Amino acid sequence: MGEQKVQALLVSSPANVRYLSGYTGSNGLILLLAGEAHFFTDPRYALQVSRGITCKVHIAKGPLIEEVAKLIKRKKLKKIGFEPGAMRYEDYAKLKDELPLGASLIPAGRVIEELRSIKSPAEIDGIRKSVQVNSEGYARTIKRVRVGVREQDIAAELDFQMRVLGAEKPAFETIVAAGVRSALPHAHPTSHRLAASELLLIDVGATVGGYTSDMTRVSVAGEPSKRVRELYRAVLDAQLAALDAVKSGVEARKVDGAAREVLKRHKLERAFVHSTGHGLGLEIHEMPRVARKEKSKLRAGMVITIEPGAYIDELGGVRIEDTVLVTEKGCEVLTPTTKEFVVL
Amino acid sequence: MGEQKVQALLVSSPANVRYLSGYTGSNGLILLLAGEAHFFTDPRYALQVSRGITCKVHIAKGPLIEEVAKLIKRKKLKKIGFEPGAMRYEDYAKLKDELPLGASLIPAGRVIEELRSIKSPAEIDGIRKSVQVNSEGYARTIKRVRVGVREQDIAAELDFQMRVLGAEKPAFETIVAAGVRSALPHAHPTSHRLAASELLLIDVGATVGGYTSDMTRVSVAGEPSKRVRELYRAVLDAQLAALDAVKSGVEARKVDGAAREVLKRHKLERAFVHSTGHGLGLEIHEMPRVARKEKSKLRAGMVITIEPGAYIDELGGVRIEDTVLVTEKGCEVLTPTTKEFVVL
Repeated sequence: MGEQKVQALLVSSPANVRYLSGYTGSNGLILLLAGEAHFFTDPRYALQVSRGITCKVHIAKGPLIEEVAKLIKRKKLKKIGFEPGAMRYEDYAKLKDELPLGASLIPAGRVIEELRSIKSPAEIDGIRKSVQVNSEGYARTIKRVRVGVREQDIAAELDFQMRVLGAEKPAFETIVAAGVRSALPHAHPTSHRLAASELLLIDVGATVGGYTSDMTRVSVAGEPSKRVRELYRAVLDAQLAALDAVKSGVEARKVDGAAREVLKRHKLERAFVHSTGHGLGLEIHEMPRVARKEKSKLRAGMVITIEPGAYIDELGGVRIEDTVLVTEKGCEVLTPTTKEFVVL
Repeated sequence: MGEQKVQALLVSSPANVRYLSGYTGSNGLILLLAGEAHFFTDPRYALQVSRGITCKVHIAKGPLIEEVAKLIKRKKLKKIGFEPGAMRYEDYAKLKDELPLGASLIPAGRVIEELRSIKSPAEIDGIRKSVQVNSEGYARTIKRVRVGVREQDIAAELDFQMRVLGAEKPAFETIVAAGVRSALPHAHPTSHRLAASELLLIDVGATVGGYTSDMTRVSVAGEPSKRVRELYRAVLDAQLAALDAVKSGVEARKVDGAAREVLKRHKLERAFVHSTGHGLGLEIHEMPRVARKEKSKLRAGMVITIEPGAYIDELGGVRIEDTVLVTEKGCEVLTPTTKEFVVL
């Protein structure tokens, strides 16, 4: 707070609220002051909150932001930091309107997100559990996939297996894309049935105890063509090159560049339409970004994905993704699932 | 746009973007001008977009908001409406900073949300399908629930059955709460095993073709006590009273009041800690709110939930919820599931 020159920080991102307090509901705000924390929620959560949170709890009957304004006035705070990437204009305008002259709202950047980017040992354990559920759910599902199965049934089975293994929910909408649809990096599963020799791209993650995981694997329903086999090999080489580049102290863009360089050698640089990876934790997308222009440095304790891909319209796409712990000496690939090109 | 005195409306709520364009990805913006619509997304979605959207498409390599700013400058627009409840302060500040002097950003209220509150026949069909999947998934699951089953296994089975029946995903995190945990209106499913004579509260919805549904039912594992039976009866009476009050032209608060009045007669008004219902459609919470102070009027074509509840710490909670279509003469309860107090 010193650095930001604010007397208080209003935390409105639900994941940041959970990180600080353990609160898992959808309507909570925290006002951090030097030496004290105030938590705001509505009566729906009164019982839940009385069992989990240690900050001073305020139960608001109306909009939470009005209660926050009252407290700011009572405490005579003048400089209140807020989260510009999480707070909606509406709440900002309402809060600003309620404050006395002389008090100001100061965009505070991603303070809590920075803290969250380095995981504690307990958080790393949480992510390991999530990765285990994710990979085991994938293993149980993929062995039963045959030509003729619908994308949506594969997705349903993946989600079910992860739930049975202890997930609260999928970490994001499970992607199952077969054939030419695998060239859509974020395809929704459809009633399309897997056909012979089609690629099958599955991008799936679990949320376990609040912590996420993320993996992508591509398999093929029968012998692939030479072109498809080369596409797979190029993406796998790019993924391995990126993993090799991961290490505490390395700029994130270097890792992205390592993947991009390999794909360029295969004339696939234009087919790689996204970045190489992202942090994950309580959210599926966290700091750091592992992207072309990202100069921030990886640090030990970060957990990131490494997921280059190449997408060719009318042929299909390949993406290979692991969840990875950054260490002092390099990285630990948490995802145990094989990266061989599995023929179903 | 005339009424709002703006030349353009920047649509940033993902559900509003989908409503206007059919785009289902996570990174899209629409700028509506008189007679033309501009759609902004990133290269990940280039293939997907070229297959779905009819507006003029802009593929941005960086933040979408920068592309929007360029277009606003090129078109020399002076008054640009935006969505204060959807736009983050960060995007607002960036856009404002990019605009030339004389151009201003004007909070436009919930224009698209108002349009969305009245459903078209095609949308009502979509919701009917979602309700069917929801109720059928519930029926397939509940008949297999016995004492000793874990909350999370019930939730996994519900989600799986809905997926198999055609849902993309649950409409929200499925709530399964047994025993005293049913008194937490938004409990996450745990490894708790259903015990004899415990209440079992299930609040579940499907998303099918983008459209949501929402229902809550409470059953009991063996003969309930007199107190529990009375609690159930009181909430059911409140729910039926609220349904009776639904009709085009009625203020939403009257419907809320009808439920509250019944619970008051049973001295349960303080145990009813939330509002009676909410609209639903592409999102699980839409306009209108069916709440204590809501003076807006229900109109034919709205689809809302009616879901009073009563929660008693150390005993448990009952909530009974249907998805309901508002009509000129009253309402049509879309949810076909029985509201009898089912003994498992």
